[in-house]
Amino acid sequence: MSGVPFLDPDRLFPAEPHVRGLARELYEGVKDLPIVSPHGHTDPSWFAQDTAFADPASLFLTPDHYVLRMLHSAGISYDQLGVLRKDGTPVAEGREAWRLFCSHWHLFEGTPSKLWIEHSLEMFFGISEPLSAETADSIYDVIDAGLKTPALRPMAVLDRAGVEVIATTEFALDTLEHHRVLKEKGLIGRIRTTYRPDDVTDPELPGFAANLARFGEMTGEDTSRWDGMIRAHGVRRAFFREYGATATDHGVPSARTVDLVAHEKQALLDKALSGAIGTEEAGQFRAQMLTEMAALSAQDGMVMQLHAGVRRSTDPALLAEYGPNLGADIPCRTDFVDGLAPLLARFGNAEKFRLILFTLDESTYARELAPLAGYWPSVMIGPPWWFHDSPNGIRRYLDAVHETAGFHNLAGFNDDTRALLSIPARHDVWRREVCRFLAHLASEHRISHSHAREIAAYMCHGAARKAYNLK
Amino acid sequence: MSGVPFLDPDRLFPAEPHVRGLARELYEGVKDLPIVSPHGHTDPSWFAQDTAFADPASLFLTPDHYVLRMLHSAGISYDQLGVLRKDGTPVAEGREAWRLFCSHWHLFEGTPSKLWIEHSLEMFFGISEPLSAETADSIYDVIDAGLKTPALRPMAVLDRAGVEVIATTEFALDTLEHHRVLKEKGLIGRIRTTYRPDDVTDPELPGFAANLARFGEMTGEDTSRWDGMIRAHGVRRAFFREYGATATDHGVPSARTVDLVAHEKQALLDKALSGAIGTEEAGQFRAQMLTEMAALSAQDGMVMQLHAGVRRSTDPALLAEYGPNLGADIPCRTDFVDGLAPLLARFGNAEKFRLILFTLDESTYARELAPLAGYWPSVMIGPPWWFHDSPNGIRRYLDAVHETAGFHNLAGFNDDTRALLSIPARHDVWRREVCRFLAHLASEHRISHSHAREIAAYMCHGAARKAYNLK
Amino acid sequence: MSGVPFLDPDRLFPAEPHVRGLARELYEGVKDLPIVSPHGHTDPSWFAQDTAFADPASLFLTPDHYVLRMLHSAGISYDQLGVLRKDGTPVAEGREAWRLFCSHWHLFEGTPSKLWIEHSLEMFFGISEPLSAETADSIYDVIDAGLKTPALRPMAVLDRAGVEVIATTEFALDTLEHHRVLKEKGLIGRIRTTYRPDDVTDPELPGFAANLARFGEMTGEDTSRWDGMIRAHGVRRAFFREYGATATDHGVPSARTVDLVAHEKQALLDKALSGAIGTEEAGQFRAQMLTEMAALSAQDGMVMQLHAGVRRSTDPALLAEYGPNLGADIPCRTDFVDGLAPLLARFGNAEKFRLILFTLDESTYARELAPLAGYWPSVMIGPPWWFHDSPNGIRRYLDAVHETAGFHNLAGFNDDTRALLSIPARHDVWRREVCRFLAHLASEHRISHSHAREIAAYMCHGAARKAYNLK
Repeated sequence: MSGVPFLDPDRLFPAEPHVRGLARELYEGVKDLPIVSPHGHTDPSWFAQDTAFADPASLFLTPDHYVLRMLHSAGISYDQLGVLRKDGTPVAEGREAWRLFCSHWHLFEGTPSKLWIEHSLEMFFGISEPLSAETADSIYDVIDAGLKTPALRPMAVLDRAGVEVIATTEFALDTLEHHRVLKEKGLIGRIRTTYRPDDVTDPELPGFAANLARFGEMTGEDTSRWDGMIRAHGVRRAFFREYGATATDHGVPSARTVDLVAHEKQALLDKALSGAIGTEEAGQFRAQMLTEMAALSAQDGMVMQLHAGVRRSTDPALLAEYGPNLGADIPCRTDFVDGLAPLLARFGNAEKFRLILFTLDESTYARELAPLAGYWPSVMIGPPWWFHDSPNGIRRYLDAVHETAGFHNLAGFNDDTRALLSIPARHDVWRREVCRFLAHLASEHRISHSHAREIAAYMCHGAARKAYNLK
Repeated sequence: MSGVPFLDPDRLFPAEPHVRGLARELYEGVKDLPIVSPHGHTDPSWFAQDTAFADPASLFLTPDHYVLRMLHSAGISYDQLGVLRKDGTPVAEGREAWRLFCSHWHLFEGTPSKLWIEHSLEMFFGISEPLSAETADSIYDVIDAGLKTPALRPMAVLDRAGVEVIATTEFALDTLEHHRVLKEKGLIGRIRTTYRPDDVTDPELPGFAANLARFGEMTGEDTSRWDGMIRAHGVRRAFFREYGATATDHGVPSARTVDLVAHEKQALLDKALSGAIGTEEAGQFRAQMLTEMAALSAQDGMVMQLHAGVRRSTDPALLAEYGPNLGADIPCRTDFVDGLAPLLARFGNAEKFRLILFTLDESTYARELAPLAGYWPSVMIGPPWWFHDSPNGIRRYLDAVHETAGFHNLAGFNDDTRALLSIPARHDVWRREVCRFLAHLASEHRISHSHAREIAAYMCHGAARKAYNLK
Repeated sequence: MSGVPFLDPDRLFPAEPHVRGLARELYEGVKDLPIVSPHGHTDPSWFAQDTAFADPASLFLTPDHYVLRMLHSAGISYDQLGVLRKDGTPVAEGREAWRLFCSHWHLFEGTPSKLWIEHSLEMFFGISEPLSAETADSIYDVIDAGLKTPALRPMAVLDRAGVEVIATTEFALDTLEHHRVLKEKGLIGRIRTTYRPDDVTDPELPGFAANLARFGEMTGEDTSRWDGMIRAHGVRRAFFREYGATATDHGVPSARTVDLVAHEKQALLDKALSGAIGTEEAGQFRAQMLTEMAALSAQDGMVMQLHAGVRRSTDPALLAEYGPNLGADIPCRTDFVDGLAPLLARFGNAEKFRLILFTLDESTYARELAPLAGYWPSVMIGPPWWFHDSPNGIRRYLDAVHETAGFHNLAGFNDDTRALLSIPARHDVWRREVCRFLAHLASEHRISHSHAREIAAYMCHGAARKAYNLK
């Protein structure tokens, strides 16, 4: 009768009875499809070691930057939330932080965090009462007890969630030690790494020169020479492919690319290694590296993912005291058209090249991404990313891209999360929203029911397999 | 049966019967809440003197830049509309202008002006027939007669509208003479001023040096020295607080801030006082002043409002002949992320600091404002501003901000108007749209009914009190 | 029962029964109104010669850049699609290309191309089965046979579609030979040219100097002098008006305008003629030419259309091998506020001046275009353009512009197409969407039914006649 907060079977579906009926029907056809998670940030050690998670707070609270930032916006300090300080000063312990979190649960009304967390709690722990100051302790205890059971071990979670394939993300210098274990266990294929070389492509990163030296050691290439550095990437990419990688990933402040001649590239590298590179030249270095990565993808067929347009760590105090990735990253305007022009002019039509574009600037969906994907054979649009990975975010995305790009230039869904237990919840939100969207199209006689069913299945399963070359 | 143009009890509610029912129910709970109007441009002399308004045209037509610009866009001159010329050349008299306005009422179909004006006419004058060439005179007479009655005196209007608190806006050099009268009458608290120091923070304003000199006289500070100038602000802010001010307001062409060292600041001030400041340096001056205002707010706890991103007086002929604020102000793209970085790096986490951001660039809602408000404890998002203070504008706003910022980082509603009689109409539109939005969330099982009721009340009353520290 | 893919009488109408009923009722009142097509790219030789179209592929496939780009995005080459190569290398013949097109019809699910093509096939050929590999040949044969009948001759198509007025677009150097024939046949008025002088206003165009020389010969003016060049435009504009032109059209990468003094203008022209003009100066040249065109419009009353904000031919290989206008044009951010400031400061209030603005940057609808049109008497907003000329594109447009600009600052609809048979389909989509939108407003009691009917008729017929001065 009253809107049930937890897992109503019709949640996210439109109220109009006919469209709701269509959405339900479409959802029936996709809700149990296996999960393909081709881009995310789960920890490979979980799957390699398959040991129990420590406690509720370190599972649901401290690693979730969506949750941390919202509580911080209400004036709660990271200390009170139990986020470890760089200098080791003591912070709140788990249960204490958990209570604070639960007593501020009202801040999350209307946010996707609420949907994801409540879904996780009900699905994995059978919890169906709302978080609150009153329920904090009892829910903590239920979760804590659950985490000690075999059903909550990482591999059991993958099984329960129906995860067919999941990709983790590792930096170029990562030894892939956990993936080696996974290989021995025969799990590569279901679990895969992704090559994310930001540690050796961004000269503004602390320790960049040391990273490049290490990169040279690992690969036997002279990484003080541009050509050697590029060959080193080739070596590492091949190594990552042995552990299931079909894709690379690149996190950059802008979508700028350039296509320089050899001596200009070497000059940039020399400056970068000297540590005296300026802001503009560092930008050129990253821009050239994107073009180089496209060149390598056009050769080895690895799918290139571009996550562009975010100012990282915008709170210097937070960065200094606690570190990065805690909620102070803010999107910015992004120009894909001028930015990618040099790269696409060279590789846009290359047969083996594929480039998946992710944006935090929704104004680019209809203006830039859909026209680019609707022309270039190599370009696809990634799903809504980060701040926009939410019911209304998905609605705006589908609304803005589908008419110009069609459905076949979309890359399906990514959960892009480090929160393992939220994976089924996130895919469920996507599936419901896709079905809702297609139900509207069908109710307006813009697609037939049978096409709606086909597209729903494609968008919830096949598209991701195809986009990421998962055979 | 046919859509009634005036005040249908279900206006703005969605057609789908279930959602409409939910919206109605939520609206029942908020429609009679007192009005909190923490930012606006009503004239304090109205309340201090409480005398009758002059005539219909000077109440509904000549002060309303929404109405003037629309009639001008149809080729009607400001002379014909009775807007006074700087040089005193005669213009149309009130009734003549009113007839012209009424005979062009069809231009306003679909605009918020129509909603506001028809609501005002019915609520305060019992008028329920549409404006037209035919009805112009009779409606003029009804309004004119009404204005002579005690029920239409300014304080009676506040009572009738249920205004609990209303803030006016005065420049730093204002003597607050009307607020002194209000203080004697015991009305400060219900009526409050706001500190808007644009007259002494924008060196491109004509008479800036003279303004700063006057600012020094009023405060006993040496405003030719940067430190003295800042102390002068401190003095004036304290003076404004005596007349109820809890907030400051800053109207700037961009959200740019800088954080310069002392000698750079003094050099800017020297140039500004010499009258030889260039465009770029004037921008730096304004940018530094925002940072200074944040520093003062972090000390004295006044809430800082930022209205950024508008090109003022874009028609030079209009400005020369009639003056500013007549409809030729046009929004422009605004960059809050890079713009506010210096200010937030210093004061974003300061305990007593609060910054309410207003934008005319809707592309910043989801990309910039919601992520900023969803991280920084000091930052809140103001309601849709000016061109976007309309049913569809409110829909786009709530859609874009709520998932990342939640509801508790929103500042409730501002009417931001100088049109006194439109205040209840504007708040009513907000209330209806909030209820509509929450009804949709509840119908999709994203929030419970009881939470919807709580959030509705908060968004229509509590949020503004909290955001503006109105105790 | 199941969603019928072809021409369901309720297509595009909302599912909610009451609103659908209102939309249907409004649509009944506008569906048979004559078509006014004041801006488009049909070939005037079709109407002058009135001969049969060649074959299905050259009618539906190779001239349609929406279709070509989508097939290219799926990895199909322009050779396979039968697009002629500059060097004459053979490409696929029509039937072969048609089969490929039909077998990839699923790519167009959800796109406006599907709506337009299916509408055309049913309306003009009685085809109501979907395109597919299986139906490719039989449908090809039906179309091919139909094209040989008198009913498919260009003038018969105009009659069948109820086209009251249609404008073609010719460059300044065009001889208007086909329009001369049309004049002899008494068809000028129903068929009109439009003055699009991009060939002599863009100094970055290959052959620009030769074009200007030819421009001088055609007009008897010295086009090596700025004043002579402007007079030459005046001569050509008058010539175009003899063939029914009421409008000019300007395709530019940005909305930038400048207002330079005489010697600066001559210096730009000298550089342009020398062939040594740089990128920045070429931009200034185009920017000044927009201001000059506004000056001429303010004199001769021709309506100035501005299509701004697109990067043309972004695939250099495509341009080199096949040419322009084949799908590799990508929108970019556009700044109308600063861009148009110099032009509007001079001519914005000029009595005979009218400027219709088109954008591919939807973020400008509410932020820039609606405020500009809602103030300046000369400015109107053109309908959604190109990538946004689609059901959801129209929804976003009406949502974003109507509250600030009202309906009377909108220019009605343009089909802007070279695909003759799609014209009724495109106008039908607009009409359905306008009725849908107004039905929503009426269902929310924001406009009355009678006003909704009036506005629907205006938006579907009268607005275009008024905006383009079609008497």
